[in-house]
Amino acid sequence: MAGRTITDDELRALDAHWRAANYLAVGQIYLLANPLLTEPLRPEHVKPRLLGHWGTSPGLNLVYTHLNRVIRERDQNTLAVWGPGHGGPAVVANSWLEGSYSEVYPDVSRDAAGMARLFKQFSFPGGVPSHVAPETPGSIHEGGELGYALSHAYGAAFDNPNLVVACVIGDGEAETGPLAASWHSNKFLDPVHDGAVLPILHLNGYKIANPTVLARLPEAELDELLRGYGHEPLHVTGDNPLTVHRAMAETLDTALDEIAAYQRAAREDGATERPRWPVIVLRTPKGWTGPAEVDGVPVENTWRAHQVPLSAVRDNPGHLRALETWLKSYRPDELFDDDGRPTERVLSCLPAGDRRLGATPYANGGRLLRALPLPELERFAVPVDKPGASVHEPTKVLGRMLGAVMEATAARRDFRLVGPDETASNRLDAVYGATGKAWQAETLAVDENLDRHGRVLEILSEHTCQGWLEGYLLTGRHGLFSCYEAFVHIVDSMVNQHIKWLRTTGDLGWRRPIASLNYLLTSHVWRQDHNGFSHQDPGFVDHVMNKSPEAVRVYLPPDANTLLSVAEHCLASRDYVNVVVAGKQPCFDWLSLDEARVHCARGAGIWDWAGSSRGVREPDVVLACAGDVPTQEVLAAAQLLRRHLPHLAVRVVNVVDLARLLPHDEHPHGMTDAEYDSLFTRTAPVIFAYHGYPWLIHRLAYRRSGHANLHVRGYKEIGTTTTPFDMVLRNDLDRYRLVMDVIDRVPQLSVRAAQVRQEMEDVRTRHHAWIREHGTDLPEVAEWTWEG
Amino acid sequence: MAGRTITDDELRALDAHWRAANYLAVGQIYLLANPLLTEPLRPEHVKPRLLGHWGTSPGLNLVYTHLNRVIRERDQNTLAVWGPGHGGPAVVANSWLEGSYSEVYPDVSRDAAGMARLFKQFSFPGGVPSHVAPETPGSIHEGGELGYALSHAYGAAFDNPNLVVACVIGDGEAETGPLAASWHSNKFLDPVHDGAVLPILHLNGYKIANPTVLARLPEAELDELLRGYGHEPLHVTGDNPLTVHRAMAETLDTALDEIAAYQRAAREDGATERPRWPVIVLRTPKGWTGPAEVDGVPVENTWRAHQVPLSAVRDNPGHLRALETWLKSYRPDELFDDDGRPTERVLSCLPAGDRRLGATPYANGGRLLRALPLPELERFAVPVDKPGASVHEPTKVLGRMLGAVMEATAARRDFRLVGPDETASNRLDAVYGATGKAWQAETLAVDENLDRHGRVLEILSEHTCQGWLEGYLLTGRHGLFSCYEAFVHIVDSMVNQHIKWLRTTGDLGWRRPIASLNYLLTSHVWRQDHNGFSHQDPGFVDHVMNKSPEAVRVYLPPDANTLLSVAEHCLASRDYVNVVVAGKQPCFDWLSLDEARVHCARGAGIWDWAGSSRGVREPDVVLACAGDVPTQEVLAAAQLLRRHLPHLAVRVVNVVDLARLLPHDEHPHGMTDAEYDSLFTRTAPVIFAYHGYPWLIHRLAYRRSGHANLHVRGYKEIGTTTTPFDMVLRNDLDRYRLVMDVIDRVPQLSVRAAQVRQEMEDVRTRHHAWIREHGTDLPEVAEWTWEG
Repeated sequence: MAGRTITDDELRALDAHWRAANYLAVGQIYLLANPLLTEPLRPEHVKPRLLGHWGTSPGLNLVYTHLNRVIRERDQNTLAVWGPGHGGPAVVANSWLEGSYSEVYPDVSRDAAGMARLFKQFSFPGGVPSHVAPETPGSIHEGGELGYALSHAYGAAFDNPNLVVACVIGDGEAETGPLAASWHSNKFLDPVHDGAVLPILHLNGYKIANPTVLARLPEAELDELLRGYGHEPLHVTGDNPLTVHRAMAETLDTALDEIAAYQRAAREDGATERPRWPVIVLRTPKGWTGPAEVDGVPVENTWRAHQVPLSAVRDNPGHLRALETWLKSYRPDELFDDDGRPTERVLSCLPAGDRRLGATPYANGGRLLRALPLPELERFAVPVDKPGASVHEPTKVLGRMLGAVMEATAARRDFRLVGPDETASNRLDAVYGATGKAWQAETLAVDENLDRHGRVLEILSEHTCQGWLEGYLLTGRHGLFSCYEAFVHIVDSMVNQHIKWLRTTGDLGWRRPIASLNYLLTSHVWRQDHNGFSHQDPGFVDHVMNKSPEAVRVYLPPDANTLLSVAEHCLASRDYVNVVVAGKQPCFDWLSLDEARVHCARGAGIWDWAGSSRGVREPDVVLACAGDVPTQEVLAAAQLLRRHLPHLAVRVVNVVDLARLLPHDEHPHGMTDAEYDSLFTRTAPVIFAYHGYPWLIHRLAYRRSGHANLHVRGYKEIGTTTTPFDMVLRNDLDRYRLVMDVIDRVPQLSVRAAQVRQEMEDVRTRHHAWIREHGTDLPEVAEWTWEG
Repeated sequence: MAGRTITDDELRALDAHWRAANYLAVGQIYLLANPLLTEPLRPEHVKPRLLGHWGTSPGLNLVYTHLNRVIRERDQNTLAVWGPGHGGPAVVANSWLEGSYSEVYPDVSRDAAGMARLFKQFSFPGGVPSHVAPETPGSIHEGGELGYALSHAYGAAFDNPNLVVACVIGDGEAETGPLAASWHSNKFLDPVHDGAVLPILHLNGYKIANPTVLARLPEAELDELLRGYGHEPLHVTGDNPLTVHRAMAETLDTALDEIAAYQRAAREDGATERPRWPVIVLRTPKGWTGPAEVDGVPVENTWRAHQVPLSAVRDNPGHLRALETWLKSYRPDELFDDDGRPTERVLSCLPAGDRRLGATPYANGGRLLRALPLPELERFAVPVDKPGASVHEPTKVLGRMLGAVMEATAARRDFRLVGPDETASNRLDAVYGATGKAWQAETLAVDENLDRHGRVLEILSEHTCQGWLEGYLLTGRHGLFSCYEAFVHIVDSMVNQHIKWLRTTGDLGWRRPIASLNYLLTSHVWRQDHNGFSHQDPGFVDHVMNKSPEAVRVYLPPDANTLLSVAEHCLASRDYVNVVVAGKQPCFDWLSLDEARVHCARGAGIWDWAGSSRGVREPDVVLACAGDVPTQEVLAAAQLLRRHLPHLAVRVVNVVDLARLLPHDEHPHGMTDAEYDSLFTRTAPVIFAYHGYPWLIHRLAYRRSGHANLHVRGYKEIGTTTTPFDMVLRNDLDRYRLVMDVIDRVPQLSVRAAQVRQEMEDVRTRHHAWIREHGTDLPEVAEWTWEG
């Protein structure tokens, strides 16, 4: 393919396609009617509210046009990620030109009537968003919140050896942290089993109101930066269209030739040197081909071109004329026939069928998704003859199951584990029996489990981990993100955007379901013995519970077998964000696998064996729990109550699936009031020991009739480096405090109860003093066991 | 200063200091008693729980030791930011050696008794955290959540022309997004008015369980990266202490000489070329000088040295012997006298007084803080003779006030405005009348308001903005962060850490109060006309309300004058995170400045003029609101009710200070039940129109006796690109829906009420149809006015 000379006529055809796309982008921003300018432009042809982003659109149109040519010529599987996703008009325009848009939305046909609809619907109520959104064919990336283009692109490229992912990075987005970190993704890309990422850094020079940093570096300094990132820069610079077309066409050929050569070397010749993958630096004016000046100030090639260059078109006849001149500068009569259909010449660069960027199945990952081969859980379950008789590290047990998933997907390569340097710390290292950690940088003899072809991804950037996994899932594969609980907040905003994506795609019939995004949050708030306060934050659950209930699930399995059951469910699920909070520290085994499955399917249930009501009558009090540490404290409290107040009827309820607490009309998993009351009663005091911030339970349950009797204990933002039991003591989540809560809330207890309450108070004081003196927990809690 | 040869004897003295610091670091991790090894080490001398991070400590000790020398020799004001803040033992050790520790904590004296306390307290219940925490003298940076070291350092350097900020960046932290983005901070550092940042990239090669990316790049590639970041790399590499000492001493001299030369050129010669500031690349082994091998596997210079290299010291006699050998390898008898006091030789490198890194006032910013000169609000207030008779853009009004603050601080230079490229978009551009945007990169003729000496900081990285501002505030200055509401979630985890910092420093008498961190969240959820769903998220308020109430304040001023009053209060406050949510779109003026001040001081109040109860009797219904858009909808609903159901007694309550809704024992601003009931009643239905997620109001108010009557409307995660009124319609926050809510909840209304309800239903349908057809709001809402 290398070295083919592109004729001037071919360049002019590419230019025609580009002009057509530019025309359609401007039309979407401005026109309500008269799409082909068949009559002189009048104010009523123009939208009353002008909303959209022109500035980046001509650059995106240029890239799309030229990608079309190389895809067609090379029959190259290609996915495009449009970092400046606010340039929605450009990507929609191209999809319409190539026909993929009308295939998904038949009413927006590729003719004058369809063009009129295309224009009107853009950024219009009931129409389509202004960004490259889930509604946009060919997109896996919204681009409204900047920073994730390149990590999404790498995620898409992993384990797709025949795919090239072209990723446009705006120079604004390039200033963000997540983007800056993700350049180093190339140290994790295996040229044998993965596809390639071609970053196209688009320096149009300006953000909303400022020049960009990268555009204002001397070119030599920028080249050093890109080489430091491990890339070889190729430059395309200019504002003369035909010059730029030639340079872009030749440079794209060079880049794809280099990529092919690196892949050949690795795949056929066994080369192991890390490739210096190409990056294209594209310098073209912001708002290129738009109005050079408006009202006497420069607009093209300035930040003023960011959104709508002519803003008063309906009221200002000068603006109206300028808009008409602008639109006509693309010579639409050369581009569209009388029926509004793009001419053969405009379409001559286009690939066909699924090769089209708007039609590639890689951008509609559900089309490629295969069910994950999940092993029989029985192989990994811990034996439980009776509750609390043995101890396991739940995440370690899960690690063995994940190792089996890695084994089962060794050939298919459609499962990845990602995490910020914590896979072993989170005790999932059994996966290394099946695959290693992806690594293409230098290795030393001392290294362990580094693997040029590994499918565990570890980089100390939660942003990059999240972006990789999102890109991987959106292109039809499976995965799990394990993370310290406190630091998953680093990706709060990213998970927002992913949930919004899932919420929207769920309503689009043509978007096929994808695998859920699964979080395992471990190294949690109660066990930060090494790190203390900065590592203590259980609020991610609160964060996701604010989002669309259709897409959000939260699980707090209390032991190893429930974690297995929850994990199996999550890995098989579709279109959710599943948040699983589970400990890595030794934890009592409460349920057998069969019991765990039943309990997890119900999501919440009475643990008859743990209470003293024995199901015979309504309990005097309900002790509820969610989370591994709260479950242990509740069971210890139940045991204390049985010993000290044997006549008290205590019911223990464990909640695994947090959304069960919500009303059933607010969340698909929500319980009916009858179900809720059957667990928690309408009248008995409920002492609820919760893993995280206690008010979340109130926020979920405030509509329940028994809510006034609900008293929640949890993490009250009191943390430090201390012993495990001191943490629960300080936050009033300890067994003794729970017993006191029961005594305080159950009416008409015996005199003995007041004595017990004082004993509990005293024992808390004793624990506190011991811990401060000895630095350890007292044996009675450190070696506590369930007496059954 | 340049070129002085450092004698071997000086190097050996530096080595003695370094060995002493290493000894003290190991002692803190391991020893409960026998601190000077005056008797053979026995198991009971060792802590029962071994918690801490050794790996990074020798490197931090090396840097601290060598900074001491140059500070002393140059009498150089210096602040150190320790990115690998988990290396708490190192920084604490150095503070103890220089005496600053004992000055703050007199019981930890600089002698054997103090050393024993120093060792025992570390990572011990009731003692000090394992990280470089607020408790650590000389620190402004916790370092537990990695990524913010360099942006903190730049924040500290801004407007401190005589300060050098030495910033150690671990090679783990260097992989994070926030850190990667913050390298470009040097394009915003003014060599005239700002101090200097000296990054020291510490490549010890490993994270928790992996090699680091930067340590495994070829050196030439790493140099390209650092030059691309705008720095000139200086390398110090080795594992032979004396060789490394010489290289480090010479390199630090070179770096400080280069810094001084750049500053002299800019300050005395008027040079404007952007300096290529030095960066030191320090390559020393992880866990250097610790056990080379443990149980037959390599530990020093591997990831296994990350935390506690010898983990079974109490039970394994081999480990115990190895620990003793390790401790003795530092030759403590040469370093400490019989009373445990460091020898003269150890102390010979130390600077004195406030020049000591643990004693510098820059690390205890409240010592340097001056009250911000706030202008008379009357100059900026909008005139309000009667409510709703005029319209202003609140943030634009605020911008003028901020401009006056900029003017008043022109010489003092202790106020900064930061934001991700949104100052003008958020309509705060009046500040440019007083100062420009900091910019040291290339400029072009078309640029506006770029200023080599400007105090507005704009970079498209919320992380960098937040880090800069934190560093600026922690060193005793003032500032405000303006941000799109949805994207402030990008710094969720950073604000967590800052709140934790404030919560902890509040309990430390020696830490002086600092200026609050003020957020202005605008371009909010209800007005994302251009951008739609990805830009719609009001959940940051929920996020911060989970944190320590001592440090968190949330305000939703409903108009321009209330915004002014709130801003004045926030800018004058100390030790809070203030979150102010306010619109930039034209908004009715409801209150005069005097009224606004009274209302904001109360935080919530009855707007008698807006209701129809006239205060005469208990209302039939309370219409409550918080936020500018909800306030407008509530007033419009009140107007509709007055017209259609004139006999209904309606009370309007506006809430500015959200924490007022909390019980008074849960937040310092919380209302007593009596206060709450006096506003909301105990029995009347309350229809509450809230700016954000509705359940937050329930979470705040669930303990109130009237809670069962509370019905909240807010943002239900239903968003897109549409008209402003369509947004409230879709989320059931519109005036018509609020009227329907009233009718549904007030008992025993007239037949007329049922008719009104149907009319409201019909008018909503009419609006919906109009918006979808015309793309605009109907004049009756677009041009609605308050009738008074």
